[in-house]
Amino acid sequence: MRVDHIAIAVNNVDEALKNYQKILNVDHLEIETVPNEKVKVAMLMLEDTRIELMEPTSPDSPISKFLQERGEGIHHIAITADDIVKDVNRAKSQGMRMLGDLRTGSYGRRITFIHPKSLNGVLTEFCEAPPADDHNSE
Amino acid sequence: MRVDHIAIAVNNVDEALKNYQKILNVDHLEIETVPNEKVKVAMLMLEDTRIELMEPTSPDSPISKFLQERGEGIHHIAITADDIVKDVNRAKSQGMRMLGDLRTGSYGRRITFIHPKSLNGVLTEFCEAPPADDHNSE
Repeated sequence: MRVDHIAIAVNNVDEALKNYQKILNVDHLEIETVPNEKVKVAMLMLEDTRIELMEPTSPDSPISKFLQERGEGIHHIAITADDIVKDVNRAKSQGMRMLGDLRTGSYGRRITFIHPKSLNGVLTEFCEAPPADDHNSE
Repeated sequence: MRVDHIAIAVNNVDEALKNYQKILNVDHLEIETVPNEKVKVAMLMLEDTRIELMEPTSPDSPISKFLQERGEGIHHIAITADDIVKDVNRAKSQGMRMLGDLRTGSYGRRITFIHPKSLNGVLTEFCEAPPADDHNSE
């Protein structure tokens, strides 16, 4: 199992990016808008994992609500493994509270979330391992 | 640059460990008490990074204060690179607000922190790369 990404809720991706680039040596950077999730995302790829800066693109984005309640900060961490169906079934059988079924997230990868109440306050995403040609799959 | 660890503040390491072991395939686990920092720590080693569960061992531990104010959740992320002095100097020269000078943390590695106000609400540790025989140094 690996950490696929650490997602940080920010008010403004461009401003946040300036801050993070002051301290990180970013191997590769991608910026995209994800209409389904109502966020604009900057993916900062490090050697082993990625930092995802997320800005809401609509007041009804889940990230807007998070920012109003908590302010900027880490929103979730994402864990990836080779067999997501097995991982999700194991988590469910152990009584973990899931936030929805497996569904297709960005880049066509299957994802789901574990409720923070099941994991000591940490919203945790399970996401399918990236395709073999992806940055993190070596 | 890599993510060395993700540190999570918890009320009880043993209970939290049970939760995390329900969802993670942990390669290796270490539990230790760090008197200087007044925490009991469980290090869960994944393939690429580590998840650190931290329980305060004293009411005046910084983690006690965090738990009182915020509840359980992610406390900080730690970034490691090969030349920590260079990284810290670069961060300082860019106006990042540091929390203290470079000092020796657990395992004898040099560490310092960047204030969350400089990084969109995320407390970020810089830590020296582990010795060559360490889990994450391959």
